[in-house]
Amino acid sequence: MSNPKVKRAIEIVKEQRYYDSIQGLMSWDIWEGLSKEGQPYRSEVSGYFTKHALNILKSKETEMLVGELKELDDSAFADIYEKAAVKNLIERYTKAVQIPDELQVEMRKFTAEAQRVWQDCIKINSFEAYKPTLKGLFDLKMRVANAINPHANPFDVLCDSVDKGIDTAEVGRIFAALKVGIKDILDQIKDEHAAIDDSKVRMKVETKRIRDMAYDVNTLTGFNYDCGKDSETVHGMCTGVGPRDSRIAISYRGDPWGGMFTMLHEGGHGRYNYGSHPRAIECGVWGGVGGAMHEGQARFYENMVGRSYEFIKYAYPTILKHFPEIKDVSVEDFYKAVNKVTPSLVRIGADELTYSLHPIIRFEIEKEFFNGNIKTDDFMELWDAKYEECFGMRPKNVKEGVLQDIHWASGHVGYFQSYTLGNVYGGQLLHKMLEKTPDLYAQMEKGNFAPVNDFLYEHIHQYGNSAYTPKELIVNATGEELTEKYFLEYLRNKYLKK
Amino acid sequence: MSNPKVKRAIEIVKEQRYYDSIQGLMSWDIWEGLSKEGQPYRSEVSGYFTKHALNILKSKETEMLVGELKELDDSAFADIYEKAAVKNLIERYTKAVQIPDELQVEMRKFTAEAQRVWQDCIKINSFEAYKPTLKGLFDLKMRVANAINPHANPFDVLCDSVDKGIDTAEVGRIFAALKVGIKDILDQIKDEHAAIDDSKVRMKVETKRIRDMAYDVNTLTGFNYDCGKDSETVHGMCTGVGPRDSRIAISYRGDPWGGMFTMLHEGGHGRYNYGSHPRAIECGVWGGVGGAMHEGQARFYENMVGRSYEFIKYAYPTILKHFPEIKDVSVEDFYKAVNKVTPSLVRIGADELTYSLHPIIRFEIEKEFFNGNIKTDDFMELWDAKYEECFGMRPKNVKEGVLQDIHWASGHVGYFQSYTLGNVYGGQLLHKMLEKTPDLYAQMEKGNFAPVNDFLYEHIHQYGNSAYTPKELIVNATGEELTEKYFLEYLRNKYLKK
Repeated sequence: MSNPKVKRAIEIVKEQRYYDSIQGLMSWDIWEGLSKEGQPYRSEVSGYFTKHALNILKSKETEMLVGELKELDDSAFADIYEKAAVKNLIERYTKAVQIPDELQVEMRKFTAEAQRVWQDCIKINSFEAYKPTLKGLFDLKMRVANAINPHANPFDVLCDSVDKGIDTAEVGRIFAALKVGIKDILDQIKDEHAAIDDSKVRMKVETKRIRDMAYDVNTLTGFNYDCGKDSETVHGMCTGVGPRDSRIAISYRGDPWGGMFTMLHEGGHGRYNYGSHPRAIECGVWGGVGGAMHEGQARFYENMVGRSYEFIKYAYPTILKHFPEIKDVSVEDFYKAVNKVTPSLVRIGADELTYSLHPIIRFEIEKEFFNGNIKTDDFMELWDAKYEECFGMRPKNVKEGVLQDIHWASGHVGYFQSYTLGNVYGGQLLHKMLEKTPDLYAQMEKGNFAPVNDFLYEHIHQYGNSAYTPKELIVNATGEELTEKYFLEYLRNKYLKK
Repeated sequence: MSNPKVKRAIEIVKEQRYYDSIQGLMSWDIWEGLSKEGQPYRSEVSGYFTKHALNILKSKETEMLVGELKELDDSAFADIYEKAAVKNLIERYTKAVQIPDELQVEMRKFTAEAQRVWQDCIKINSFEAYKPTLKGLFDLKMRVANAINPHANPFDVLCDSVDKGIDTAEVGRIFAALKVGIKDILDQIKDEHAAIDDSKVRMKVETKRIRDMAYDVNTLTGFNYDCGKDSETVHGMCTGVGPRDSRIAISYRGDPWGGMFTMLHEGGHGRYNYGSHPRAIECGVWGGVGGAMHEGQARFYENMVGRSYEFIKYAYPTILKHFPEIKDVSVEDFYKAVNKVTPSLVRIGADELTYSLHPIIRFEIEKEFFNGNIKTDDFMELWDAKYEECFGMRPKNVKEGVLQDIHWASGHVGYFQSYTLGNVYGGQLLHKMLEKTPDLYAQMEKGNFAPVNDFLYEHIHQYGNSAYTPKELIVNATGEELTEKYFLEYLRNKYLKK
């Protein structure tokens, strides 16, 4: 029999998750069903349920309960899932009372407007016109950070609300090492990769063909479409509407391989969403921890599985069934084509090697700002200088430069590190998997994904929105502290070994 | 300034509509996005919000307010929309307290199971096996009716909860007259219609072609897709998720003209859903009155507009653009083909003339049951006899006979009259429109739908979930009591005049 306080905490958390679920459904529906003129009413409905959920959370009862829950030690919990529920409730409650409602409303309004301005400024190619908005955004995020913890570095606070328990100084060190390592590989292979002829596999085709191929390829890895439906939309994303109900959305744009890797990527998010232990569902903590760990699962299936030679070899007959026009392209040439490294100014669609550099640049800029070394007005200059340094290229306009991402406009500051950190997690997990199953890739080539899927379930997925921080999950899974070395080792093996 | 009690009533009604909206979205999503394994959790979420909405509605505060609202006279209302909100709240509250929660839960569980049994019994072609379930369903509906009003005829009570203010005795008289009138037309044209050769327009094609054509044809009538999105699903339906947010779902099954008329039909529901006056939205009474009036709007656009010679002539170039393979079929022959009368045992897909007879048969059977003249065990015998009488044919199996509709299994008893009554409303409204705009059809042939759309907006749509009963709406719109004569006149004009 559970501790009655824990039992009550679980009830409240589950109730909050019901509200999350309808908000998740409404947010998925914006792209899938909501009519243009239906939007104002939708905001009203969504606002009503947001407020309602917060009222329950901020009630006198929860306040008292949270006080009592903080006093509990581990003996009060029947298992790790109960502990997770209690931790989750304390965190939710704390966040709800820390950030004043008015500031949340101001933030929501400002970001809605900022996204409009952002689009306009791209159209007229003007960073100048965007300056006041960018300043307003970062000032607001500073206020949010101060509301959460006035005594800590605001950048640490913002990153922590994305990646629980993150140590930004440590991430900074890891990123610095990564940058050196990746640039070193890039220097060695740049010319060789530039010479790869991928013209035979590049094509524009209609969505249905891509989708049917991508669906079948993703199924090969063991993705369960009974727990997740896919659809086409304007940009790739995955929404966890329920514990066994992931919504994968993909923007195909006519590119079959982009579509295939996006399906594998969003499928990775989808698995983490739907793969929680039944007890995690019972305790309202299904769906995974956010930020880098979620991104890591997605990039693991996209790259470490999907872009591997062994997987491609296994999947190739399926690919050819849908795309007989490339039947004269050998597996080797196809593998090379979809792994061609081409340094580019744009993050989205970047190759596996250089991708990690893009979020690092953004992370460094944000960090400089919150450390007081630069103003938002300086972002473009610093951005362009950093791209010059990393890629030897400068953006010709704001669309391929400082305004290429929607993140800041939508209020996602302190978020970018997730992408690259996700790769670092992936590398470390892969290393451990290979230690346990040295023929991991040979197994994949035979269509056996159990060593991958079981490892990720056992160490990461089952815990859902876990009582463990991401760092603890990694240490528990691999027996080592967070390190970039395995991801770099993976990249070196992939790009430098023949 | 509104009366404070009225103001509070509006707030509560609007809040209830927010709950309706998320339930509507979840129910639309069952067909559009929900994964198979996501269903149990979805039931949990839906059940939570159902209970929550009922708790608000059944609160002490609402109880007292409803008592006070009942004392108000019309001077308390700023307009008809405020009156509608108050009426709506009183009705919702009354229904919520009348039907015990346990009975509602029992009903929901029983119908979920009944639909499963219904499918099984169709597969094994056995009415015998379905008897206990059918008895259980009607017994439950009897209990629901008695809970609402133990002093009234249960059939009247059930029909009234679908069509507010309905007089089933009067509907019985109208239906009896209709039956005679329709059979009379049918006898005169049967042979002539059997001879119509529609083979040139009958075809099976892929969904996308049908959908794009149906979309364009529906647009011609002034349907606004900014207020309603369409999709493909397993059966035709329209869900009003918000005041300007109708979801049209169509089952295409490869049949272009079936798809086109379904789009016009569901488009009629969609318009009524999205066409409320802004004040109706402000007062939480958007979306139309249910039952026959909603069905009437759908059948008006499907048949009285869509299947008219003038509309088809106007839409024909659009149709041919999508279906050049029928370019040698004249408008006249196309019109005849899609209006061919073919008596059939099955309601869905029946032609415009004989369609009305199908719901009448079901209405009569339900009525006999609730009047105590027959048992549910006798339904099949009576069903078959009535089809013999009306169509001169007997079903060969339960799928084309007594088990063809899902309605009873899903708890829809006292609902069928809506379909035929909707046609009767349509006939009466059309008569009035023609009085006002004698060249109504000539206008449609020129692409001018304003006389139709404006009339329906002015007299029906703007009022939303109106303070007027359906009968009052008809009397206000046409200046006459409900009568079948105009619908019969319309049918006679269509089928007997050359």
